[in-house]
Amino acid sequence: MNREIDLKNINIKDDFWTPRQGLISNVVIPYQEKILDDQIPGVEKSHAFANFRITAGMEEGEFYGMVFQDSDVAKWLEGVAYSLAVKPDPELEKRADEIIASIEKAQQPDGYLNTYFTIKEPEHKWQNLQECHELYCAGHMMEAAVAYYEATGKDKLLKVMERMAAHIGDTFGPDKRAGIPGHQEIEVGLMRLYHVTGKEQYAKLAQYFIDERGKNPDFFKEEKEKRGWTHFGMNPNDTKYSQCFAPVREQKTAEGHSVRAVYMYTAMAYIAEVTGEKELLQACNTLWDNITKKRMYITGGIGSTAEGEAFSIDYDLPNDTVYAETCASIGLVFFARKMLDIHPSNKYADVMEKVLYNGILSGMQLDGKRFFYVNPLEVNPEISGKLHGYKHVLPERPGWYACACCPPNLVRLLMSLGKYAWSESENTIYSHLYIGSSAKLKAAEITVESKYPWEGKVIYHIDKVMFDEDFTLAVRIPSYAKNEKVILNGSALSANGLLKEGYFYLKKAWVSGDQLEISFDLPVRRIRTNSIVRDNAGCVALMRGPFVYCFEGVDNGESLQELRIPKNAEILVANCEEAPLEGLPALIFDGVRVQSGEELYTEEGPEYITVPMKAIPYFAWGNRGINQMKVWMLEV
Amino acid sequence: MNREIDLKNINIKDDFWTPRQGLISNVVIPYQEKILDDQIPGVEKSHAFANFRITAGMEEGEFYGMVFQDSDVAKWLEGVAYSLAVKPDPELEKRADEIIASIEKAQQPDGYLNTYFTIKEPEHKWQNLQECHELYCAGHMMEAAVAYYEATGKDKLLKVMERMAAHIGDTFGPDKRAGIPGHQEIEVGLMRLYHVTGKEQYAKLAQYFIDERGKNPDFFKEEKEKRGWTHFGMNPNDTKYSQCFAPVREQKTAEGHSVRAVYMYTAMAYIAEVTGEKELLQACNTLWDNITKKRMYITGGIGSTAEGEAFSIDYDLPNDTVYAETCASIGLVFFARKMLDIHPSNKYADVMEKVLYNGILSGMQLDGKRFFYVNPLEVNPEISGKLHGYKHVLPERPGWYACACCPPNLVRLLMSLGKYAWSESENTIYSHLYIGSSAKLKAAEITVESKYPWEGKVIYHIDKVMFDEDFTLAVRIPSYAKNEKVILNGSALSANGLLKEGYFYLKKAWVSGDQLEISFDLPVRRIRTNSIVRDNAGCVALMRGPFVYCFEGVDNGESLQELRIPKNAEILVANCEEAPLEGLPALIFDGVRVQSGEELYTEEGPEYITVPMKAIPYFAWGNRGINQMKVWMLEV
Repeated sequence: MNREIDLKNINIKDDFWTPRQGLISNVVIPYQEKILDDQIPGVEKSHAFANFRITAGMEEGEFYGMVFQDSDVAKWLEGVAYSLAVKPDPELEKRADEIIASIEKAQQPDGYLNTYFTIKEPEHKWQNLQECHELYCAGHMMEAAVAYYEATGKDKLLKVMERMAAHIGDTFGPDKRAGIPGHQEIEVGLMRLYHVTGKEQYAKLAQYFIDERGKNPDFFKEEKEKRGWTHFGMNPNDTKYSQCFAPVREQKTAEGHSVRAVYMYTAMAYIAEVTGEKELLQACNTLWDNITKKRMYITGGIGSTAEGEAFSIDYDLPNDTVYAETCASIGLVFFARKMLDIHPSNKYADVMEKVLYNGILSGMQLDGKRFFYVNPLEVNPEISGKLHGYKHVLPERPGWYACACCPPNLVRLLMSLGKYAWSESENTIYSHLYIGSSAKLKAAEITVESKYPWEGKVIYHIDKVMFDEDFTLAVRIPSYAKNEKVILNGSALSANGLLKEGYFYLKKAWVSGDQLEISFDLPVRRIRTNSIVRDNAGCVALMRGPFVYCFEGVDNGESLQELRIPKNAEILVANCEEAPLEGLPALIFDGVRVQSGEELYTEEGPEYITVPMKAIPYFAWGNRGINQMKVWMLEV
Repeated sequence: MNREIDLKNINIKDDFWTPRQGLISNVVIPYQEKILDDQIPGVEKSHAFANFRITAGMEEGEFYGMVFQDSDVAKWLEGVAYSLAVKPDPELEKRADEIIASIEKAQQPDGYLNTYFTIKEPEHKWQNLQECHELYCAGHMMEAAVAYYEATGKDKLLKVMERMAAHIGDTFGPDKRAGIPGHQEIEVGLMRLYHVTGKEQYAKLAQYFIDERGKNPDFFKEEKEKRGWTHFGMNPNDTKYSQCFAPVREQKTAEGHSVRAVYMYTAMAYIAEVTGEKELLQACNTLWDNITKKRMYITGGIGSTAEGEAFSIDYDLPNDTVYAETCASIGLVFFARKMLDIHPSNKYADVMEKVLYNGILSGMQLDGKRFFYVNPLEVNPEISGKLHGYKHVLPERPGWYACACCPPNLVRLLMSLGKYAWSESENTIYSHLYIGSSAKLKAAEITVESKYPWEGKVIYHIDKVMFDEDFTLAVRIPSYAKNEKVILNGSALSANGLLKEGYFYLKKAWVSGDQLEISFDLPVRRIRTNSIVRDNAGCVALMRGPFVYCFEGVDNGESLQELRIPKNAEILVANCEEAPLEGLPALIFDGVRVQSGEELYTEEGPEYITVPMKAIPYFAWGNRGINQMKVWMLEV
């Protein structure tokens, strides 16, 4: 197994990421804290902290919010833990401790923890696994508990969640009640609990939930018939929605609710890593390939249809009715990261990077105050967010949601970025992402000096070596890198024999002062989609490095559908000068506008006008008011 | 006012239309009769005849069907009336008489006629004008009554509906209860009743409903509050949906449910024609222009969004999420025809023709047994009819609908085609459509020999002249006609001064034996949309004569989105040889297929392959199994 990276040992110093992590620590986390504590007027009421305090008997009041409101607190706490690991903050830690104290007090004597059911419907506990998400909330709180323990050494929440895990283990299992979660997450939570405690019962319970799923496709139907009530009328017969249509090892296509799907696949990979089971790993690879080769947007978005927030069918990737929930992309990063632990390959890392720099980062406004749930590849403000089929596709980020899953999910991912940049096995250090950082690893301490993502130049400085023996430094080379060069202490190395599945492996007796430099060209790339994808046939999207680019009306005028990218256009990189995009590299070139006359229908041909065109990194769209946006453009 | 055309005097003999009218008389009307009488197993149950018999006390049973189920009988009877006018059929007339007898017996002593409320909720009569469509059903039955009287001379149903009109007049009006119909139709029914009886109170009542609409935008809201119950939860606050957002004379854009809208505009034009009111006529023209210049599909379909089966906004004409209900197109023909009575111009007649040959005819399968409600311009069977936003867009015609408005609407329109081809004012005969026919008009008897729509050649033979004085024959010249020639008795006439708004006016002392020949070229036309229309920018649709063409997968292979029409392609006309399209002229040419490799995303450019392409008339799509279909194609 790979050695877990201790986030406290990774100090990110990166032109791109350090300001963003700072924004999250300084703005987003405090802002979300205030929202969870109902201190921000004008945004959707949360009440999530209060729910715990009320359950704990610390204050009077009623439960308010979604049945899974507790998970917002869990995700926020997990983000706080990573933030504390990266940047200690005694005041924040104190407040987090207080919240954890209320969680501990809210726990029931039998270990049960869930504010909704404890306050509102204690008689209905564990009866509605499909809709009521008790296991989902528990899974998130386990992740928070593990993260908080790792960041602070404090185990109060860990103990709470071990008691909850024991309670769940007493309730569900092979020789007990059958059960599977409606929204997968408990499996990952249990695996992380296993990881930090070493207690095998947690891994076994996680595997139970995975093994049980799809064995009986009618589980939720029978559960509903048995209990005779419903929370919000979910259809238990849609077994694709719930990933119950087949045992997980027999699932060949990514189906149903996309967040639930990728959380489940992550857990499957986690378990396959621990057990070494080939069949489960094979299922993970089959599902990975189905997503990334047939069901993923170029931005790393997944989920093509609003109905069920779900995958649809192969090659169905509509740009303007897309779902592409931020949380689903985050889950895809979890899945990619776990697959990398099992099998380092840039096929996972390249996707992880693409998702991170595009479909996830687009979820947050540049000022950290507003968030997208849905990340479209085309927005037309006159219809988006308004008309049937487009109502879910908003042209601007709202402040907060009643179902506020995405914003805290973004926080926990971006604050734990060090864990995605690095991993370490017995004798190999893996660098998966080019992020400027100082990393204290088991084998060595390394400082990464990075000009990425703006330039393809990264230097690994070996500051200190801990191992006496040879060890390997494995650095991912992205599949899109052109003219890559590897220079060790000033001498160029041949990649011959050292490059395997997109990782450059250099094994040697490393010494302090060694420098490994990776450089490559970052030209603008014109990407085409398989022409089976209806909306994109004949189109190109522009990329540079990890960034997908898009066109906005504010830069390109109205009616973006009229614009074309000439095949021979010379595309230049020019930094934006005005706030809020200052410093971001835009792409500029002479494009073509195909413009008609005034008539609705005419025999007259259109005019072809040469016009300046400008594309900006996709993640930064929607930061300059409501306007049209488009990623894919026809090429002429 | 224009003289009403007596359908019995128009004998259509036309290569295109005669077989279609025959199909309707011989197949569609008897088939629909059996459905309305619940004699066809496997299709949606109707029960519409039985509802009348039960209400009449002629048989035992319960009401079944929609609250507006009666309107299916009315529309069918209206179609039967036109069929009897065109082609007498004593057996059919006998059965229609029996149904009319049951309708008469179902009428209540106070004149009220509606099977739903009489059987099920007599206490709720006239309380829910928004949802319950008593006025709508009455309007349709008035149209049926007038048509049946005109076709057969029998006035039983006419008397029934005069009693119902009197009952409505006793109930609603300026000095009585305020009321407006939820679904406009009563206005047209009353105007037709006025037309055949000459009784002004009917025209005044129609005008009352038109004048009243939008005066109080909250009418339906207040109605709902007052009654305290709802039939199916319609939102009374959506005043655009119900065309209540402003008084009708102040409405500048076509809004809301598209069928209701055009039925209302037709009534407005009817009233403006009778009263000569300029303001009302101006409103009609403003709405006509808004529809035809900004909100109409090239097929003559209207209604861009499934939500509310409604108009959306200017230039929003999505091809694959389109609504374009057959009934709405039929209503647009009614509106066009009425505008022509007021002001002959090919701006109305060209649209009327386009709608008829495309967006309406597509509603019926070639065998007359299956019907589209929604007429899309693009269908992708893997998602159409299946996924969110596309569920209403079916890739094949179903047999019958629970809400079966479109099929009988098609019947009544196509069987009364003579009324759309001809009109006659004091001293002018108007030929609006080129349809082979023998017409006994007031001024003359004329036989039209037509090769249209296959060729641009039509000869008007003056068989008999009834007027002593000069009179005018006015023949529409379509705006798309190229190189038109007018030849009178072998001598070419100059159009100089004789052509006005697309009508060629020839005034003379016509004599028996005169021949007026109109000929013009019918080249294939490449039509472009205003590039504000997102889906069509850079695309062309092919037309020839009145026909819009489309491409189907069965002729062109999979992935139609890969196909392009070269700017310089020579497009040939070649008749289809195989059933069921035999004899229809297809368009064939060398096109281009832009085909990618296997990868989902790649830097590789696509291949450009020359491929044979074939387009068929749009109305005939979906007759060869489920396959992809597309009207608009990118031009390269």
